Amino acid sequence: MTDQPSQPALHASHELRSDARDNRERILQVARTTFAEEGLDVSMREVARRAGVGPATLYRRFPTKEALVTEAFGEQMTTCSAIVEAALRDPDPWHGFRTVIEEVCVMHALDRGFTAAFMTAFPKAVDFAEERTRALRALAELIQRAKDAGGLRRDFVLDDVILLIMANSGIRATSREAAVAATRRFVALQVQSIGARPDGGPLPPAVRLPLMTGLR
Amino acid sequence: MTDQPSQPALHASHELRSDARDNRERILQVARTTFAEEGLDVSMREVARRAGVGPATLYRRFPTKEALVTEAFGEQMTTCSAIVEAALRDPDPWHGFRTVIEEVCVMHALDRGFTAAFMTAFPKAVDFAEERTRALRALAELIQRAKDAGGLRRDFVLDDVILLIMANSGIRATSREAAVAATRRFVALQVQSIGARPDGGPLPPAVRLPLMTGLR
Repeated sequence: MTDQPSQPALHASHELRSDARDNRERILQVARTTFAEEGLDVSMREVARRAGVGPATLYRRFPTKEALVTEAFGEQMTTCSAIVEAALRDPDPWHGFRTVIEEVCVMHALDRGFTAAFMTAFPKAVDFAEERTRALRALAELIQRAKDAGGLRRDFVLDDVILLIMANSGIRATSREAAVAATRRFVALQVQSIGARPDGGPLPPAVRLPLMTGLR
Repeated sequence: MTDQPSQPALHASHELRSDARDNRERILQVARTTFAEEGLDVSMREVARRAGVGPATLYRRFPTKEALVTEAFGEQMTTCSAIVEAALRDPDPWHGFRTVIEEVCVMHALDRGFTAAFMTAFPKAVDFAEERTRALRALAELIQRAKDAGGLRRDFVLDDVILLIMANSGIRATSREAAVAATRRFVALQVQSIGARPDGGPLPPAVRLPLMTGLR
């Protein structure tokens, strides 16, 4: 397999490029839908079949599954980062933090494939990992500010965000609307529990929850 | 396939019965492990293969997958009911309710197969459904008492228990110990959020979360 597609003499080069773009978009669309519904275990061969392209075409565009996942959910990862960065500009950091939890959880409720991608550590997908590291660093700063502002309880840690996002991913409903409604109620409960309150006892120890290599 | 195993003349009848018991126990053990690790989607044929028995033997003991699941997790369902009934005898219903949430969530953290079985509606498994209905009815009474005692927030509903158990099922960790520790922290947060508090705003509407036909 070479890096360049062979170019049949009958096609003009700009038409080929347009075909290639269509293929690429169709593959990404199919990948998002498939991963959302069935998780990341679906094989590259199956993605190719559903997209109506040959495996060679798929691998030419996306040499590894990591590359395909990174590309398919890159926009959502960028949105996540943007949500956290917008929250850092909120003059009320506790309000900003609550907004992050709510918006990110709703994104996950709407797309389980993204949840799987988000939770999965792909060591090869360097861009993805860098985006995530940057978002987590910004989130850590937001948490500190929300504590300093007296909104967030002092024993809350960054790992608790992972805990809550994982927990949110366990919620199943029979429609997208019900999933979002359930997530909103769940997040509202979370917000009550993580708010600083004088009468709340200490929590059990925080747990280091590594971003998983795969979600069932 | 007949209801009775064929009886080779060379074996005494009590030995056969002992073999049958061994088979039955081995099948149930394999089913619990397999369902816990891979969910309920594993086929009956695969369970038979792993248990080292023929499919005919498996189907003779457990005519349907529902029957196998009911039997495999029957003890845990009974334990769940017992937890709720013990809580109804607790003189402090809010303490009793918190204990139910914690103990049931830890049971689920220790056995994902049970979570899948618990959340799955098997219309054919009448005994299982009856046990669950009874437990849910007792739980509804406990919720009412915990509210009346001023411990539980008044806008909490039975469906929120399903919501929290589902959410707990989303938590993944790299060991059983970490899973239990994460669940304990999660439950402690839940307890803070569902406690009655004068300064807590109203929650978004409750969501009817049907017991699912399958968990991924």
